[in-house]
Amino acid sequence: MAEISIVLVRPLYAGNVGSVARVMANFGLKNLILVKPCKLGKKANDMAVHAKSILKKAKVYKNFEAAIKNFDLVIGTTAESTNKDDYFLRITISPEELRKKLQKVYGKVAVVFGPEDIGLKNEELERCDIAVSIQSAKDYRSMNLSHAVAIILYELSKGEGEKIQFRLASKREKDLITNTFGAIANLIKYPKPVERRKIFNLMLSRIIGRAQITGREANTLIGVLKKMKKRLK
Amino acid sequence: MAEISIVLVRPLYAGNVGSVARVMANFGLKNLILVKPCKLGKKANDMAVHAKSILKKAKVYKNFEAAIKNFDLVIGTTAESTNKDDYFLRITISPEELRKKLQKVYGKVAVVFGPEDIGLKNEELERCDIAVSIQSAKDYRSMNLSHAVAIILYELSKGEGEKIQFRLASKREKDLITNTFGAIANLIKYPKPVERRKIFNLMLSRIIGRAQITGREANTLIGVLKKMKKRLK
Repeated sequence: MAEISIVLVRPLYAGNVGSVARVMANFGLKNLILVKPCKLGKKANDMAVHAKSILKKAKVYKNFEAAIKNFDLVIGTTAESTNKDDYFLRITISPEELRKKLQKVYGKVAVVFGPEDIGLKNEELERCDIAVSIQSAKDYRSMNLSHAVAIILYELSKGEGEKIQFRLASKREKDLITNTFGAIANLIKYPKPVERRKIFNLMLSRIIGRAQITGREANTLIGVLKKMKKRLK
Repeated sequence: MAEISIVLVRPLYAGNVGSVARVMANFGLKNLILVKPCKLGKKANDMAVHAKSILKKAKVYKNFEAAIKNFDLVIGTTAESTNKDDYFLRITISPEELRKKLQKVYGKVAVVFGPEDIGLKNEELERCDIAVSIQSAKDYRSMNLSHAVAIILYELSKGEGEKIQFRLASKREKDLITNTFGAIANLIKYPKPVERRKIFNLMLSRIIGRAQITGREANTLIGVLKKMKKRLK
């Protein structure tokens, strides 16, 4: 099983951050990462109960990119999921599907939650390999932040004790695949409308993210893509 | 699927009761029952957010027996579970096992949660048909009340409803991707040892398979790969 960290991006309420720390302890997690958090203080400590040390040791970052850069797999969470396949950014998997994916791998995994009011920004979701959504009632989807963390950790904890198999491709390796493929597409002017190329690249990175490729697969793909690029130049 | 009500027995904190109402709304539940609750007021309403009507309509009872008497099945919850069969009262099933049981039935089901500090009394658990426990880390089992409700409702909600979201790429489309990519690799003589090319193709088809790409993604990939192949010839 992968090693999981929880990343809270711009959390607004100290009580929620404390509650998240507590439920992390309930499921045996230790690494909490905060991006531009609200002030924590007593309220956060009260809600953390016996998990104050998780709060105390939480790493704080000023921006999203710095917070995720050392992870092999970055999982974004969103309350808005879609079934329109032209809006692939919000094509999500369930927590259960996420567990099945993570069971087969090891590596450093970040599960990222956005602010309580508006969630992760599109450009942040774009930087995630996979987006996860908790299926809830249609008329009231917006879930308390710590409830969402509780549900995801509960689901992932079911996968423990499973056997380890592969090293996950790192974020850097996956970016290299997407960028090289993107550069080739550019060379051959695909897709024709320039403004659609960014979307094409995004689609590629999502496919690569979802496929959960191993380090070995990544290296093979990088090899063939570099060779293709060289030949096309 | 059974019709589920949540019963909170002697809840101590108004915020938790409000949070429970919210997560009930998130999972489409309406019936909240309170046995000798703490004073609710503003704190409960604040945490309920858009689920204030659930709080307002909650039925309040003075004793446990009166609260459960109209249900067909009463599920108790406990943080202490045991595998010693001489202490049968705390022999528990997992939320997942509960879901499997409830899927097969209909009727009125109460899921009962005890006070935040000590949980349900033994004599209350005795009155339950089944006891459920959420498997958590051994060194910190005690979970926030509303987190426990969130996890149980999440698990039970899996028994419901619709799935299919977008059209998955067909086998033919996926084969076309793999074969075109394989043909390109052949054109640029990658990997060099001819006998390894079959393995390379297999790796490609596995990655494509794992990524669970949509029909639309498949068509885009087929487009760019065909163009690449044409240019490389």
